[in-house]
Amino acid sequence: MRQIEFIAENEGVDPDFIINGVKNGTIVILNGGRPCGVGKGLRTKVNANIGTSPQRISIKEELKKLSQAIFSGADTIMDLSVGGNITKIRRMLMDDCNLPFGTVPIYQAAKSCGRPEKITLSAILETIEEQAEDGVNFMTIHAGITSNLLDIAEKRKMPVVSRGGSIIWAWMRKNKKENPLYENFDKVLKIAKKYDLCLSLGDSLRPGCLADATDEAQIGELINLGDLASIAREAGVSVMIEGPGHLPLHHIEANVKMAKKITHDAPLYLLGPLVTDIAPGYDHITSAIGGALASWAGADFICYVTPTEHLGLPKEDDVKLGVIAAKIAAHAGDIAKGIQRERQQDDKMAEARANLNWKEQGDIAIDPTKFWGTDGKEPCSMCGNYCVFKTVPPKKA
Amino acid sequence: MRQIEFIAENEGVDPDFIINGVKNGTIVILNGGRPCGVGKGLRTKVNANIGTSPQRISIKEELKKLSQAIFSGADTIMDLSVGGNITKIRRMLMDDCNLPFGTVPIYQAAKSCGRPEKITLSAILETIEEQAEDGVNFMTIHAGITSNLLDIAEKRKMPVVSRGGSIIWAWMRKNKKENPLYENFDKVLKIAKKYDLCLSLGDSLRPGCLADATDEAQIGELINLGDLASIAREAGVSVMIEGPGHLPLHHIEANVKMAKKITHDAPLYLLGPLVTDIAPGYDHITSAIGGALASWAGADFICYVTPTEHLGLPKEDDVKLGVIAAKIAAHAGDIAKGIQRERQQDDKMAEARANLNWKEQGDIAIDPTKFWGTDGKEPCSMCGNYCVFKTVPPKKA
Repeated sequence: MRQIEFIAENEGVDPDFIINGVKNGTIVILNGGRPCGVGKGLRTKVNANIGTSPQRISIKEELKKLSQAIFSGADTIMDLSVGGNITKIRRMLMDDCNLPFGTVPIYQAAKSCGRPEKITLSAILETIEEQAEDGVNFMTIHAGITSNLLDIAEKRKMPVVSRGGSIIWAWMRKNKKENPLYENFDKVLKIAKKYDLCLSLGDSLRPGCLADATDEAQIGELINLGDLASIAREAGVSVMIEGPGHLPLHHIEANVKMAKKITHDAPLYLLGPLVTDIAPGYDHITSAIGGALASWAGADFICYVTPTEHLGLPKEDDVKLGVIAAKIAAHAGDIAKGIQRERQQDDKMAEARANLNWKEQGDIAIDPTKFWGTDGKEPCSMCGNYCVFKTVPPKKA
Repeated sequence: MRQIEFIAENEGVDPDFIINGVKNGTIVILNGGRPCGVGKGLRTKVNANIGTSPQRISIKEELKKLSQAIFSGADTIMDLSVGGNITKIRRMLMDDCNLPFGTVPIYQAAKSCGRPEKITLSAILETIEEQAEDGVNFMTIHAGITSNLLDIAEKRKMPVVSRGGSIIWAWMRKNKKENPLYENFDKVLKIAKKYDLCLSLGDSLRPGCLADATDEAQIGELINLGDLASIAREAGVSVMIEGPGHLPLHHIEANVKMAKKITHDAPLYLLGPLVTDIAPGYDHITSAIGGALASWAGADFICYVTPTEHLGLPKEDDVKLGVIAAKIAAHAGDIAKGIQRERQQDDKMAEARANLNWKEQGDIAIDPTKFWGTDGKEPCSMCGNYCVFKTVPPKKA
């Protein structure tokens, strides 16, 4: 109950609003040192992915990325490590993290089994339980990709671009069997229930390029996710739905509305959407464009995309740019959604700006460091005496 | 005629389409070494502003910014210099510029007259003529702000944020007279006609914060701009309309559609729109979000906003980020608008990416420098053996 009150206070809503949302499945609570609510009627949240790759394994670097993500204002952290001692890395990161913490357990399971096609159901379930025991708050589970969708998805430009999804795909093809997480979803739910874990139903078949956006494979999986969400709710397990991916601007609203309808308004967690494929190095921007539109249309949770997406593992500076771009997108969407507390920030900034109050601008700015070192003195070198607020001073309120 | 053919070829449209657009006033041709068309049915164009401020006067720096803007893919350049010897700076920049070149002549006129309220009509007209004689291709003219709008705009959080607009405002207040450019628009048209100059009708009362978006002052001026556009067309002078500014996401489409309707589909040239006020240091991102939506809704021309907007004069690196963010926005909007030639780039990138062809990805990327130094070898350090295209290779087309 103290958690609910903390969240309600932070959001500026009544605790009953949160309680009802959780009951209806339109809101999930992500636990952690600083818990947050994700869902309908709440501020859009931002997640930062960190974690090692097989080529870049440095706990020190990951700890730096973690603290940068927290400092820059991420609401949650996910550890996507696939290189090194995954358990050890996760535990060290969790020790330093005061935010809700998420993982993708299939990575650790795949690593422990050697090759994707050698994964066993028990290895996956054991990994989920190990991570839940460690106190992980939410996990991506790739239960929605089913064997009937593979032939359809094979016709795409990019059959599968989800790392976890590709592992399940390879397993199903090799073993000629159904997705073990789909068939044994009840076992996953049992662990989730035991540890009060929130499941994030992964979209293995999210489009990896504009050409594959909103196609049969994607929507086929979404329908599965809707079914799984209903099953989870009945079992008393909270779920979010993960969404695309790469979508052209004019597909975004339709995708959000469709996902919300099919999943009975489950909280929607988007990676992107990236509105073009041709801007590697700037995918924090392509995804901020898509994320803003998606947030406005009803998405509840945005996973950041860093400038190094499609190029390499992000470094500390990339984490900062990714978090800030996603926060801008979330904020812009929240303004359009009508979340008053968010919009008030803009009005305060406008007043500080019109009054040439640089100290206050720095306090309100999404990145106060841009004002550091100015000693509250006028830092702007843009217009000098041609400053519009000197030529035509605004009336004081 | 060779110009029209060059533009039609570049756009992938029939020369008659351009000729008819110019006749109807829905397309303008911006002359210059590499002329471009701006308007309905054409690719969204990107302008980069450069120029000195009173505190930062370095021709060398401005020349670097110019070549960075050209290298990064700007379609046009505007010189907004207000510091130093403006005529000399402009001429040096024009010598190095192979793109359509624009200016805001009121700056030079204000500087030559000392203080805003001392400007004379003849000083403005002489400046316009001097710059036109120098070969400037398009100019922002602040003719739409009229005295009846000042009392309305004074109630805003930010009465006026256009630098040129604030000069005209101060002049009108001090001299208790109507805007000389509005009253003597025929004289401006005469010079424009003589030099085949395209007029960009400036929006002096563009909103400077979300709180002032889409208000009476802004729309009152837009109606004036629509009238002036009709007068210009009758006089055989080509015009664009400048637009906001700071707009929340959910105002953008309405603003674009309204501007198009009121100005009889004149090409629309936007600065932004910035979808939040709280992100100084990242306004290339806030404006990329707004610009993408605006382009999709029908805006034809986007003026870049750099990361230093609201903080200071941009440097060379800021120019690069500004151009690329605006190009991403324009491209994302063009895809949604259905401009096939733009979308084909994304499909080519998707194929190169699925085939792990790093050389080709670099060739297609909006910023090829992100792939430099990789020697065409695999530069991505994200997933290693967990690369989805290794786990599930796409079928070759």
